[in-house]
Amino acid sequence: MRLRELASYLGREFVGDGELVIRGVAPLEQAGAEDLSFVRSERWAKLLEGSRAGACIVPLGFKAGARPVIPSPHPSLDFARAVGTLLPCEKPPAGIHPTAFVDPGAEIHPEASIGPRAVVGPGCQIGARTLLLANVTLYADVTVGEDCILHSGVIVCEGTQIANRVLLQPGVVLGGDGFGYAFDEQGALEKVPQVGRVVIEDDVEIGSNTTVDRAALGETRIRRGAKIDNLVMVAHNCDIGEGVVIVGQAGLAGSTVVERGAMLMAQMGSGGHLRIGERAFVGARAGLHKDVAAGARVWGAPQLPERAFHRVMAALTRLPDALRRLRAVEKRLGLEPPGDSGEGE
Amino acid sequence: MRLRELASYLGREFVGDGELVIRGVAPLEQAGAEDLSFVRSERWAKLLEGSRAGACIVPLGFKAGARPVIPSPHPSLDFARAVGTLLPCEKPPAGIHPTAFVDPGAEIHPEASIGPRAVVGPGCQIGARTLLLANVTLYADVTVGEDCILHSGVIVCEGTQIANRVLLQPGVVLGGDGFGYAFDEQGALEKVPQVGRVVIEDDVEIGSNTTVDRAALGETRIRRGAKIDNLVMVAHNCDIGEGVVIVGQAGLAGSTVVERGAMLMAQMGSGGHLRIGERAFVGARAGLHKDVAAGARVWGAPQLPERAFHRVMAALTRLPDALRRLRAVEKRLGLEPPGDSGEGE
Amino acid sequence: MRLRELASYLGREFVGDGELVIRGVAPLEQAGAEDLSFVRSERWAKLLEGSRAGACIVPLGFKAGARPVIPSPHPSLDFARAVGTLLPCEKPPAGIHPTAFVDPGAEIHPEASIGPRAVVGPGCQIGARTLLLANVTLYADVTVGEDCILHSGVIVCEGTQIANRVLLQPGVVLGGDGFGYAFDEQGALEKVPQVGRVVIEDDVEIGSNTTVDRAALGETRIRRGAKIDNLVMVAHNCDIGEGVVIVGQAGLAGSTVVERGAMLMAQMGSGGHLRIGERAFVGARAGLHKDVAAGARVWGAPQLPERAFHRVMAALTRLPDALRRLRAVEKRLGLEPPGDSGEGE
Repeated sequence: MRLRELASYLGREFVGDGELVIRGVAPLEQAGAEDLSFVRSERWAKLLEGSRAGACIVPLGFKAGARPVIPSPHPSLDFARAVGTLLPCEKPPAGIHPTAFVDPGAEIHPEASIGPRAVVGPGCQIGARTLLLANVTLYADVTVGEDCILHSGVIVCEGTQIANRVLLQPGVVLGGDGFGYAFDEQGALEKVPQVGRVVIEDDVEIGSNTTVDRAALGETRIRRGAKIDNLVMVAHNCDIGEGVVIVGQAGLAGSTVVERGAMLMAQMGSGGHLRIGERAFVGARAGLHKDVAAGARVWGAPQLPERAFHRVMAALTRLPDALRRLRAVEKRLGLEPPGDSGEGE
Repeated sequence: MRLRELASYLGREFVGDGELVIRGVAPLEQAGAEDLSFVRSERWAKLLEGSRAGACIVPLGFKAGARPVIPSPHPSLDFARAVGTLLPCEKPPAGIHPTAFVDPGAEIHPEASIGPRAVVGPGCQIGARTLLLANVTLYADVTVGEDCILHSGVIVCEGTQIANRVLLQPGVVLGGDGFGYAFDEQGALEKVPQVGRVVIEDDVEIGSNTTVDRAALGETRIRRGAKIDNLVMVAHNCDIGEGVVIVGQAGLAGSTVVERGAMLMAQMGSGGHLRIGERAFVGARAGLHKDVAAGARVWGAPQLPERAFHRVMAALTRLPDALRRLRAVEKRLGLEPPGDSGEGE
Repeated sequence: MRLRELASYLGREFVGDGELVIRGVAPLEQAGAEDLSFVRSERWAKLLEGSRAGACIVPLGFKAGARPVIPSPHPSLDFARAVGTLLPCEKPPAGIHPTAFVDPGAEIHPEASIGPRAVVGPGCQIGARTLLLANVTLYADVTVGEDCILHSGVIVCEGTQIANRVLLQPGVVLGGDGFGYAFDEQGALEKVPQVGRVVIEDDVEIGSNTTVDRAALGETRIRRGAKIDNLVMVAHNCDIGEGVVIVGQAGLAGSTVVERGAMLMAQMGSGGHLRIGERAFVGARAGLHKDVAAGARVWGAPQLPERAFHRVMAALTRLPDALRRLRAVEKRLGLEPPGDSGEGE
C-alpha cells in the first residue's frame, strides 16, 4: 500500500513522498524503511529522530523533518486503523471443516466457518461470516449472529444468545452455572438450579479464560460494545452496560448492575446486588461494598472517593510517626500510656 | 404440572386453585399467568402485587390475596426444588458418541454418556449415569463415580479420583502440576516433580475455569459437599473440608487446610500451610497470613477479627483529619513539627 | 532401585543398607518399608522417628538412628531428583494420533507426539520429543522446540514461538489479543489490532489456565527459566525476565518489565508500563503503581518497602485506640471536638 492510499483510507492528508510503499507496522525502535510507525506526542520526538521508520502517523503540527508523515488529530486511532488495513487477519474459508461435529439440527449460514474439531449442538444458529475456530464447543440452542469470531477453546452453554461482531478470545466460558445454593432443613447446601441464560449484545469483546455465568432465572446480559479483559468473572444475573470496560481479573458478584460507560479497573471486586453508575470509575483493586454514583471515581477497599482515598493513603504512611508523636504529647501532659493498644484477636 | 401436584412434590400445603397449570418459572417482574414465582420475605409484598405470576411460593403467614400460593417455611429452598422438577435438565443419551475417543483400556458404564470429541484415557473408569459432555479430556487412570456431570472443556489429569454426584463446570482443570521448585546448587529453580493426585469426594461442585493442582506427594482433597466457584485456585496438597464454600477468584496456597463448613469469600487469599478452622468465615478480599480459629470471622489483609476490622476501617477514613488535629495539639503545646513524616522508600 | 544406586545417581554417600530396594516415595507420615521419604530439617526428627519409611534423605549431620539414609547438603533438591528418577513420567508414544488433525503444511518431528484430537495449524513446526497431549490447539505458524510438554486444553495462537523444554499446564492460553482500545471520534471504543506475538524461551513453565496476551506490536516475551503459576494474567508487551517467579492469580498490566530473578507473589498486580527490578520481591496482594528498584522488597497497595509496610500495618491496628487518645488530649487542652471527622463521599 502506498502512503497516499493509506492517507486516503484514513481520510487524512499526507506530507512527503506519497508513493512510498508501506508493507508493515512496527514501533519506532524496531521499524524499518518499509514500516509505518506512529508518534503519540511531542515527547516521542527524540525517539522518532533515531528511528528508521519509512513513514509515520504524527500529531497535527508535529515537526517530523523530511520523513513522510500523515498528520492526524487522533494518531493512536489512525494508527490502529492503519494496522487493521495493512495487516488484515487471515480468515479461514467458509464452510464446515470435515473434522467438525455439527448436529444435524443446527443451522449454519453458508458463509460461516466452522473450524477443525468444533462441536455445534442441536438447535444452534450461526450467522454469516461468523468464525468458530478449532475446538470451539457450542451446547444446544446457542445463537450466534454475523461477523463474530469465537476463538479456540471457547465454550458456550445452552441457550446463550450472541449478537453480531462479538469477539470471544480463547477459553472464554459463557453460561456456566451461577453459584447459587440454599440451605436445606439440615443446614446443608442444596443447589439452586440455574435456569436462566447469557445474552451478549453487538460488538462485545471478552478476553481469554473469562467466565460469564448464566442467570439463576432470567438473564445475565453484556450490553452493546462492552469490553472485558482476561480472567474476569461475571456472576449470575449481572447486567453490564453499553461500552463498559472491565479490566483483567476483576470480579463481579451476582446481580451487579454496571451502567453504561463505567470503567472497572484490574482486580477490583464488587459485592452482590450493587449498582455502579453511568461513567463511574472504579480503581484497580478496589473492593466495593456499596453502590457507586454515576460519574464518581472510587478506589480502595472499603471504597473511598478518589481524593479521599489519596489523602488517606498518604496519611497512612505517616501513621507510625503520628503514634510516636501522640505518645510524646501524652507524656508532656502527664497522661497515662495506653493499656491495650492493638486490635488483637 | 398442577399446583396441587407441585405442593405435594414439595411436601407442602397449597392455598387457592390447585388445578392451576404451571409451565415455567420466572422472577416476579417477568412471570406470566402460567409461571411459578416466589417471595422471599414480607418486603417483596409490593413486588408481588404488581406481578402477573400465576402462582407463588411464599413465606408462612404471608398475605398473598387471591393468588394461588404454596406457603413454605423455606421459600427459597422450595422454589429451588420446584425449578428442579419443573425444568429438568435434558440429559444426553447413554453411550459413547461416535466422535469420542475412548481408549480400549477404559471401562465405561453402559448407562454413562460420553459426548462428542471427548477423550478418555487408558485405565479410566466411568460410573453409571455420569455425563462427560463434548470436549472433556480425561488423562489415564481417572475414576469418576456415578451421576457426575463433567462439562465441556473440563480437563482431568492422570490418577484423579472423582466420587459421586460431582459437578464440574466448563473449563475446570483438576490435577495440573503444583507450583513447586527447589533451588539447585547454582541458585536456579529446579522443578520438584508433582507425583501426588487430586481426590474429589461426593457432591462437590466446582466452577468454570477453576484449577485444583495435584499434590506434590499424597493428595489434594476436596471433601464431601464442598462448593467452589469460578476462577478459584486450589494449590497442591490443600485439604478442603466438608461443606466448605469458596467464592469466586479466591486462592489458596499450598497445603492450606480448610475445616468443615468454613466460608471463604470472593478474592480472598491464604498463605501456604495455614489452617482455617471449622465454620470460620473469611471476608471478601482478605489476605490470610496466619491461621483462623474455628468459628472466627476475619477480614482484611493483614487479617483482623470482624469487629476490629470495621473499627479500623472506620478510623482510617478519619486519619487525615486526625493528623491535622495532632498537629494542632502539638502547636498548642509548643512541640516541634515532625521532621520526616512519611514512610518513604 | 537400590539405595546405593540412588545415592550414586544423586552423587551422594549413603549410610546403612545400600541394598535396600526402593519402590516409591511418600511423606514421612504415609511412607512404608519400600518408600523413600525426606527430612528437611532437625525439626522433623520426631516425625521421622514415628515413620515407617524404608529410607530417607536427610540433612548433613542429621542423626537418623539405624534407618538407611542419604545425607545431603540439599535434601529438598535431592529428594526432588530422586522422585524424578524413581517415578518417571510415562510418555505417550511418538507419532501423530489417528484422531489428531494436523494441517499438511505443518512439520512434525518424527520423535514428537501429537495426542488425540489435537489440532495443529498450517506452518507449525514441532521439535523432537515434544508432546502435545489430547485436545491441544495450535493456530497457524506456531513453532515449538524440543522436549516441550503442552498439556490438554492448551491453546497457542498464531505466530507464537516456544523454545525448548517448555512446560505448559492444562488450559494455558498463549497469544490471545491484548486489551487495547482507542476512543474514536464519537468517544466509542475502537479495537486496536493486536498484531504482535508471544515468545516463550527455554525452560519456562506456565500454570493451568494462565493467559499470556500477544503484543500489540512486537513481542510479549517470557524469558529463560521463568516460572508462572495458575490463573496468572500477563498482558500485552510484557517482558518477563530470566528466572522470574510469578505466583498464582497475579496480574501484570501491559508493558510491565520484570527483570531477572524477581519474585512476584500471589494475587499481586502491577499497573501498566512499570519496571520491577532485578531480584526484587513483591509481596502477596501488593498493588504496584510505580517501579520497584532492583533488590527491593515491597508490600501493600499502595506499595511500601517491607519494613515500612510492617510498621504501618502494626500501627493500623492501634488506630481506633489512638483516635480515642487524641480526643482525650484535646479535651485536656480544651480544644474543640472536630466537626466533620470522616472522609465521606
